[in-house]
Amino acid sequence: MRKIAESTVRRLSLYLRFLEEFEEQGAKTVSSEALASRGGTTAAQVRKDLSFFGSFGKRGLGYQVPALITQLREILGLTRRYKVVVVGAGKIGSALVQYRGFRDRGFDLLAIYDNDPKKIGRQWDALVVRDVAHLEKDLQREPADIAAVVTPADSAQPVADRLVKCGVTAILNFAPAQLQVPDHVTVKTVNLVLELEALSYIIASRE
Amino acid sequence: MRKIAESTVRRLSLYLRFLEEFEEQGAKTVSSEALASRGGTTAAQVRKDLSFFGSFGKRGLGYQVPALITQLREILGLTRRYKVVVVGAGKIGSALVQYRGFRDRGFDLLAIYDNDPKKIGRQWDALVVRDVAHLEKDLQREPADIAAVVTPADSAQPVADRLVKCGVTAILNFAPAQLQVPDHVTVKTVNLVLELEALSYIIASRE
Repeated sequence: MRKIAESTVRRLSLYLRFLEEFEEQGAKTVSSEALASRGGTTAAQVRKDLSFFGSFGKRGLGYQVPALITQLREILGLTRRYKVVVVGAGKIGSALVQYRGFRDRGFDLLAIYDNDPKKIGRQWDALVVRDVAHLEKDLQREPADIAAVVTPADSAQPVADRLVKCGVTAILNFAPAQLQVPDHVTVKTVNLVLELEALSYIIASRE
Repeated sequence: MRKIAESTVRRLSLYLRFLEEFEEQGAKTVSSEALASRGGTTAAQVRKDLSFFGSFGKRGLGYQVPALITQLREILGLTRRYKVVVVGAGKIGSALVQYRGFRDRGFDLLAIYDNDPKKIGRQWDALVVRDVAHLEKDLQREPADIAAVVTPADSAQPVADRLVKCGVTAILNFAPAQLQVPDHVTVKTVNLVLELEALSYIIASRE
């Protein structure tokens, strides 16, 4: 499979979201201009992104909405389901577990873990918070495709090390730490405070 | 002020977080090695990042923790406070408003807005959800430094246009849309589903 730049993958995710909305509204076709205006890009960029995958709109007709949705879902790996575990039953962990978008996009939550005896055993939606001591045993029985690390900063690396040892190769990191992982493991970091500080730095450096 | 690469700004944010933790634990000095191991980087990178700002650790002693904290807070623009408005009183908006880390880092929430009559007037922590129709009037009376856009995708661009017209120059975007803004405005996008789909793409493309 050809390697696609991360920025392209992000635009494809956005196009897919817009196409699904167009489909809900009953649209059968969509122009590259309409996709571009929703995606904050140009029609030429949309055509370039999509032609890369052999998808060409018809002049005057545009793209077939359902066919393009199917194709984008295949490219983005969304035609299968992914098993996800969450380590850390704090506020962000709770928001994740309650986030309906997860299931809708094919991400199934297997379990949520914590090391705090006050949290272990609590019911969170359909899940019960499990003791993180059981992580290895559980993952051996039912491997996860993706792990979300939602621990405090100083626990993030040890937890990531344990996950990698258990065969997890994709990590979504919410902890304010940069995780070191082997080359075959992918980490995506989501950090609100870092984004805010990137803004405050820009505001301060303007002055 | 010298322009710093975004990746460097992120590392400085992380160093600051670690330094604050070291300070809480009573540490007076810290080595570049200790900062590096927490930040998932190398001691050489830490020394390079910090020497760029004229901060040099002493051989065998390391960096003075309180002095380096002060300096990093200055560089990151965290010695002042920022006024923040949130547009969109959905689940993520709620998580934002309840997020204590905001105030701790110098970000003061002025107001939260929605266009849903069922949400307008509701009490959210210390704030009452306001009618987004009053956005312009409110921002004229009390300008905001940063606006968080937490609306559905199709409202995000119109809301961003209104914010920019009101003089907002820094936007934190949580909507699944790429916002188009003038050059003098900075947008940072936080999107969980995009991160998840970046992971699913990588998993799928490995197979």
